[in-house]
Amino acid sequence: MKKLNWGLIGGGEGSQIGPTHRLGAAVDGKYTLVAGALDADPENGKRFAATLGIAPDRAYADWQAMLAAESGRADRLDLVTVATPNATHFEITKAFLQAGIDVLCEKPMTMTVAESQQIVRLAAEKNRVCAVNYGYSGYPLVRHMRTMVARGDLGRIRVVKAEFAHGFHADASDADNPRLRWRYDPEQAGVSAVMADCGIHALHMACFVTGQQVASVAADFASCVDGRALEDDAMISFRMSEGCVGRLWTSAVAVGRMHGLTIQVFGETGGLRWAQEWPNQLFWTPLNGPTQTLERGSAGLSPEADRASRVTIGHAEGMPLAFANIYRDLAEVIGARQESRAADPLALHYPTAQDGLNSLAAVYAAVKSAQNGSAWTPL
Amino acid sequence: MKKLNWGLIGGGEGSQIGPTHRLGAAVDGKYTLVAGALDADPENGKRFAATLGIAPDRAYADWQAMLAAESGRADRLDLVTVATPNATHFEITKAFLQAGIDVLCEKPMTMTVAESQQIVRLAAEKNRVCAVNYGYSGYPLVRHMRTMVARGDLGRIRVVKAEFAHGFHADASDADNPRLRWRYDPEQAGVSAVMADCGIHALHMACFVTGQQVASVAADFASCVDGRALEDDAMISFRMSEGCVGRLWTSAVAVGRMHGLTIQVFGETGGLRWAQEWPNQLFWTPLNGPTQTLERGSAGLSPEADRASRVTIGHAEGMPLAFANIYRDLAEVIGARQESRAADPLALHYPTAQDGLNSLAAVYAAVKSAQNGSAWTPL
Amino acid sequence: MKKLNWGLIGGGEGSQIGPTHRLGAAVDGKYTLVAGALDADPENGKRFAATLGIAPDRAYADWQAMLAAESGRADRLDLVTVATPNATHFEITKAFLQAGIDVLCEKPMTMTVAESQQIVRLAAEKNRVCAVNYGYSGYPLVRHMRTMVARGDLGRIRVVKAEFAHGFHADASDADNPRLRWRYDPEQAGVSAVMADCGIHALHMACFVTGQQVASVAADFASCVDGRALEDDAMISFRMSEGCVGRLWTSAVAVGRMHGLTIQVFGETGGLRWAQEWPNQLFWTPLNGPTQTLERGSAGLSPEADRASRVTIGHAEGMPLAFANIYRDLAEVIGARQESRAADPLALHYPTAQDGLNSLAAVYAAVKSAQNGSAWTPL
Amino acid sequence: MKKLNWGLIGGGEGSQIGPTHRLGAAVDGKYTLVAGALDADPENGKRFAATLGIAPDRAYADWQAMLAAESGRADRLDLVTVATPNATHFEITKAFLQAGIDVLCEKPMTMTVAESQQIVRLAAEKNRVCAVNYGYSGYPLVRHMRTMVARGDLGRIRVVKAEFAHGFHADASDADNPRLRWRYDPEQAGVSAVMADCGIHALHMACFVTGQQVASVAADFASCVDGRALEDDAMISFRMSEGCVGRLWTSAVAVGRMHGLTIQVFGETGGLRWAQEWPNQLFWTPLNGPTQTLERGSAGLSPEADRASRVTIGHAEGMPLAFANIYRDLAEVIGARQESRAADPLALHYPTAQDGLNSLAAVYAAVKSAQNGSAWTPL
Repeated sequence: MKKLNWGLIGGGEGSQIGPTHRLGAAVDGKYTLVAGALDADPENGKRFAATLGIAPDRAYADWQAMLAAESGRADRLDLVTVATPNATHFEITKAFLQAGIDVLCEKPMTMTVAESQQIVRLAAEKNRVCAVNYGYSGYPLVRHMRTMVARGDLGRIRVVKAEFAHGFHADASDADNPRLRWRYDPEQAGVSAVMADCGIHALHMACFVTGQQVASVAADFASCVDGRALEDDAMISFRMSEGCVGRLWTSAVAVGRMHGLTIQVFGETGGLRWAQEWPNQLFWTPLNGPTQTLERGSAGLSPEADRASRVTIGHAEGMPLAFANIYRDLAEVIGARQESRAADPLALHYPTAQDGLNSLAAVYAAVKSAQNGSAWTPL
Repeated sequence: MKKLNWGLIGGGEGSQIGPTHRLGAAVDGKYTLVAGALDADPENGKRFAATLGIAPDRAYADWQAMLAAESGRADRLDLVTVATPNATHFEITKAFLQAGIDVLCEKPMTMTVAESQQIVRLAAEKNRVCAVNYGYSGYPLVRHMRTMVARGDLGRIRVVKAEFAHGFHADASDADNPRLRWRYDPEQAGVSAVMADCGIHALHMACFVTGQQVASVAADFASCVDGRALEDDAMISFRMSEGCVGRLWTSAVAVGRMHGLTIQVFGETGGLRWAQEWPNQLFWTPLNGPTQTLERGSAGLSPEADRASRVTIGHAEGMPLAFANIYRDLAEVIGARQESRAADPLALHYPTAQDGLNSLAAVYAAVKSAQNGSAWTPL
Repeated sequence: MKKLNWGLIGGGEGSQIGPTHRLGAAVDGKYTLVAGALDADPENGKRFAATLGIAPDRAYADWQAMLAAESGRADRLDLVTVATPNATHFEITKAFLQAGIDVLCEKPMTMTVAESQQIVRLAAEKNRVCAVNYGYSGYPLVRHMRTMVARGDLGRIRVVKAEFAHGFHADASDADNPRLRWRYDPEQAGVSAVMADCGIHALHMACFVTGQQVASVAADFASCVDGRALEDDAMISFRMSEGCVGRLWTSAVAVGRMHGLTIQVFGETGGLRWAQEWPNQLFWTPLNGPTQTLERGSAGLSPEADRASRVTIGHAEGMPLAFANIYRDLAEVIGARQESRAADPLALHYPTAQDGLNSLAAVYAAVKSAQNGSAWTPL
Repeated sequence: MKKLNWGLIGGGEGSQIGPTHRLGAAVDGKYTLVAGALDADPENGKRFAATLGIAPDRAYADWQAMLAAESGRADRLDLVTVATPNATHFEITKAFLQAGIDVLCEKPMTMTVAESQQIVRLAAEKNRVCAVNYGYSGYPLVRHMRTMVARGDLGRIRVVKAEFAHGFHADASDADNPRLRWRYDPEQAGVSAVMADCGIHALHMACFVTGQQVASVAADFASCVDGRALEDDAMISFRMSEGCVGRLWTSAVAVGRMHGLTIQVFGETGGLRWAQEWPNQLFWTPLNGPTQTLERGSAGLSPEADRASRVTIGHAEGMPLAFANIYRDLAEVIGARQESRAADPLALHYPTAQDGLNSLAAVYAAVKSAQNGSAWTPL
């Protein structure tokens, strides 16, 4: 299979997420980074592009220039990753999809539900991939959880419990730090802070693992640090499409928690627990039996886990390889379409625009519920 | 100090909680078990009393006989423990308090808020101790958490996160098990199942550690196993008397969780985490510093922790010694009153009737909220 | 069954181990503490005895007076616990056994192997119990390990790995602390420091769990803190009576380790791991299967574990209840002999004088090996 | 900086270690895989090379052909990785060094100490890098441990405790599995099995972290599974160049252990503990203070840790990124030499031929000691 031409928008020097995308795309050798509009400052972007081996004529001043130039090339981009500030995701993603270029967009996919609905429709119309980077879903044991649920190991799912709590926004004296301030400014962050930033991952995870969608929510938002217009701690209860009960806590003021993305699923015949910070073990408790530690890389896991697992048992795998799994899935799906063949079914677990829409709709419902005295609010 | 005369109502053969009470009372040698009405079946109760060294004339057929006989004795009871079915707590506790006998009552203290209010008033009028057995508050490191919060180590408390989740009511085929069935029958269990049984401990813990009271709640209850009239999974958000935000999850269908009583407290200048299943370590994270593991028995803990700690560092202490700490507190407080001296201030951390009232009122508010679409409900 | 009369030698005010013995003996109500020679200072001992409810005439100035007076009483002691400085264990234990009184002796049972051999013979001649307080063997899950090995769950045992490492003797500036100094003074401590103090527990645990005895050892001793005449860190390899390979590390300078008594057993068909600091979980890995967490108090454990387990699953049990299990075993065995009936076979797992001899012999062999360039040394 | 030309010998289809090398080399985009002799079967090797994007004329039948052809090219290899069976490491590494090509060799670097000495001399003579892939030393927190020790945070180091235990060679019925059998055949594996395979990593880690070399060892080897000519379980005590005491256990029959590479270091003023399976946390205990959890990616770590750390705190990093750190170091060192500039001093922590020699010498000394009744044996 030929290597795909890959472009990156945003993710320039000093970006937190940019290196992880490049790492994830590099791992399998299925992409060549050929084009970029990496920085709001065009000169910085071009200088940085050179260090990444991007040819000068494909180091663009901005995404508009990139789209214009790439659309006309024979060797144009096979995939573009959108890693810009949240408020720009929609127009960039939309423009590249319209040009027939497959997109991997950082979360949140858009700022409004209506925009997300547009993206979903557009991707379908254009027959292009629009993936959203809920990267934690690329972990081998997360995929194994999904498979265990799907094949019925837990029976009907009763309760899903998800959390994503950290403490890195707890320092009140840090209020003027520009990396922090925008997150609590509705002008820049939109309707929600920690729920849209972290809780949305936990929401996606709950849906990904159970195979159900959020149907209605009751939410409580709190702004614990003085002066914040948006929430830094939130809790929601929800109900899912096939009756599963959901509980979700997210916080940015939980001093001592580093990341705290954890997921537990409880069904009629068993329960599962997984934590992102120690992702190489999954805890499985069959009803009335002892808890088992399922090790990534061990014999007897599902094809989904085996495919996503890259190093031998007992050797830690981390988040960059979860990203890499999504990039590899996309390479397979895009490559298959280009080659007019069916994609490997195991490559179809990447998070889609529909997932982006679903989780954003849940965030909006949570905002509405929180504004309305925690009243139950349908999506 | 003379040994106190102790009586036990309920807690007979086969009881789960009875042995732990006897163990807790035995540990420090401050009580002699002299009287009991141990079983609904008088003969069983008397036979079992004999094995515990209770004299035949003080092995009573029922609590009424016990109260009548003990009230008239010169060597009458100094403390009675009420470990009977929940619905009987109120009348027994009330009767013994009225007779001037100090009481340690199992939780819930009563079935209704109005009853709990009566008990609080009565204990005050009679100048008698009425303690409620929120036994987990006797753990040394739980007391240390409370002290750290009280002395300001965490600054203003922003969020308390409490959980109590187990999976022992998850087996639908177990529905006719009499040990289980009554818990989901409103006739016997009252207005709530898992919230009143387990969540109430987490609620008390949140109040005990923060030193605040629950002011209002928004709750969601779910009955996950078919046929249950009461909830087996619940989540509540709450606000506390000094503004702390509360989040609490409790479940009886969380297959794989054994006990799952955990408490996290987050303030302006630090965070704490503690789990009942591994009670000898407390995790303390000062703002912007690494997490520290505070070991029970280590140098530098508070007087409250030191007093409650009984064996040297590195040797596990468990739940029976937490109970024992409460029994020792009560011995000190009752003994001091009998001797007309001031009690050791370190003995004043046992859970009181007021605590019993507060947490029951929170449960009732949660029930009301859950019945009312999760609407915020003041206590 | 009548309560046994119990006496305590040593374990006075300020003792670390005394409270744990009293707690362990108190838990089940099977003993009355009736006599004591609690302190090297007779007045201190008598004053403290009074606080424990010992009658003045049975609060003795020293063990000799205690032995003389108790031997003549009709209601004489049924069991005496020896918790004095190590160098006195032998003569006290010997004297009470000769008088026909059952003994529970703190470890090490004696200072020399020849003395231990005498005790073993004497206990047999007199038909009296001489137990040695390897208290960790009283934990429910330790007994379950032993049962799993004995019934063949692991097949032939290949390797046992034991550790007991702490860091409380690491502070060189603490050299003159009298609580510490004697441990590294051969005059008072004998031939070994940390091996005889801590490593001996790990040795006993290895034997207890495997059901095998140490046959030969190769040892390396190190004195890491300047000025110490005895070792504060040691490692031994050993071979056991049925071929099991042993590895054992013990240290008193391992800063950060609190207690560190852990045991792992590996057989042909599975492996086990247990740690004293978190004693309520045992990790069992059947060959080619996932590791299972066996919870104390769960269904399906052995009768040995069930009997030793006192509170319900998910509630931590600690070291004092492990001691209590040994006291309860002794009450059963002594009571059975007094009543001329067979003792409950489940009560026969307490550590005996033979165990005391075996582990002391292994320590001596280790000392000899260490002095001889780690040469293999038979017991 | 221009990308380096990289070649791979061994590591073909089905290899366990090959993918990790390619992943590690790919992560930073500093290498182009241009040449390979990937498989003992030339056709398989060439076919697989094509899938990796290696041009047909640089897909070689064997390493000799590769060396011959590459030596004559202007765009010849900048680095070759040797990932072939152990017995071939020496001649390949030697040949490429002699041709002036830098080498990264899998461990063990050679089969004998004399060979390793030759490699060390040759690399010095030729002024070429010869690195040995003790890949675990690339983890950020391992490098932080080394820095903490080097800058004196722990004072003089007293004891290092290292382990590497797994259970994947425990199944006796697996004896004929060719992946397993060669490891216990002295013809193919040399003088040692688990010590040379796993223990050698723990040995290197002990040296890497303490900055000391092994000076003498006392070892015990055991063959626990019937029919094995080489050891599958070993324990060694050792002394290091500056007096540190070492303890090391390694096993291949420890059912339930997955990987079990752990390292603990104890000094006068503190202790450290790290485990490869959960590599993103390091536990640091200052003398007389509580244990602190140092998180990879947190503020306040050393430059060595910061440089080796790639994703934000709370996101797991795994073994492939540890490999990548070594590849990035080599790119910097080789690039600096080619550009006649000084290399970044932070890039100088990769494991060298001298490390390969040192640890092999320790293995040989251990073998000799084990054959000689565990007698102390100098290196």
